[in-house]
Amino acid sequence: MNYPNKIKKTTQKQINYSNRGMDLEQLINETNEYYVENDIALIYKKPTPIGISEAVYTEHGRVIKNGYFKAPSTLDYNGIYRKKYIEFEAKETQSTTSFPLANFHEHQLNYIRKVLKHGGICFVIIRMNGTVFLLPAESLVYFLDHFERKSIPYSYIEEKSYPIKEFYNPALDYLKVVDEIYFKGE
Amino acid sequence: MNYPNKIKKTTQKQINYSNRGMDLEQLINETNEYYVENDIALIYKKPTPIGISEAVYTEHGRVIKNGYFKAPSTLDYNGIYRKKYIEFEAKETQSTTSFPLANFHEHQLNYIRKVLKHGGICFVIIRMNGTVFLLPAESLVYFLDHFERKSIPYSYIEEKSYPIKEFYNPALDYLKVVDEIYFKGE
Repeated sequence: MNYPNKIKKTTQKQINYSNRGMDLEQLINETNEYYVENDIALIYKKPTPIGISEAVYTEHGRVIKNGYFKAPSTLDYNGIYRKKYIEFEAKETQSTTSFPLANFHEHQLNYIRKVLKHGGICFVIIRMNGTVFLLPAESLVYFLDHFERKSIPYSYIEEKSYPIKEFYNPALDYLKVVDEIYFKGE
Repeated sequence: MNYPNKIKKTTQKQINYSNRGMDLEQLINETNEYYVENDIALIYKKPTPIGISEAVYTEHGRVIKNGYFKAPSTLDYNGIYRKKYIEFEAKETQSTTSFPLANFHEHQLNYIRKVLKHGGICFVIIRMNGTVFLLPAESLVYFLDHFERKSIPYSYIEEKSYPIKEFYNPALDYLKVVDEIYFKGE
């Protein structure tokens, strides 16, 4: 493989730090690694789609010299669990009263409906007020269809979602909650 | 969204042209768009994983100034079809006698076994000798386990895979073949 391990990653830390939602993402990534290692599920974060406007060939292979981030039209994570297709998004908000729908791109909200239509397990993991919630996509779609609001009140999230406990290993065992919601009685 | 539409993509075409397997990829991408538009399946190519060693903020948002390509450890395409998880890789070779296994990264071959174990539909689309084949992952794994060879003879591919017809719209209706193999009698 031609990729340059030797490129100095001096600015990496600074970049990560500026990503809103990085901590929740880390918890989920670590949890997904645990799931893969223990043969529980195959769930991965999709790479961020990148547009390349300039690339050059170097001794390390092809290197991007000008690239930009594209808006994702699907959700961040997908994979397979207990033979089922699973797809979800993870978001955190500093707001204590409501979850702004601007956290989603318009395409993503339409996409969520499609995943449900095709029989996939779909949800949003929301960290808010110090709690991590699993909000089933069905409840999100219901909200979109019945309320003309730009944010979901915290009371709705509390009522319709399931808390995910933060723990040591795995860090955020969201599949335990998925078991309760989607595989009850199996 | 902060991404710079105005960046000139003068080198884009040249870059794409240098990608081996671009034509097969284009056929599959167009087919996947057809499937999404017609509500048949949700299958997408995963973005190539990128490592960022330098990024700057510009008037267009965050722009990558130094990025490199990472080796993928999963397969190129995944999604949902008829409520089932589906994942596959697409490869073409100029060789007429055998398909080199060097087309896969080591991680990918292990990963294929895992997808099967978790109950996913998994295969490789191979273009070779002017024909597009769908080789079920089960037959690929069987070959790996029973033959210590660095390439799959064309005769094995012909025997174990299913031809996919190239057509107009969709360009490469591989789900028709998936129906025959994985949903027979349903």
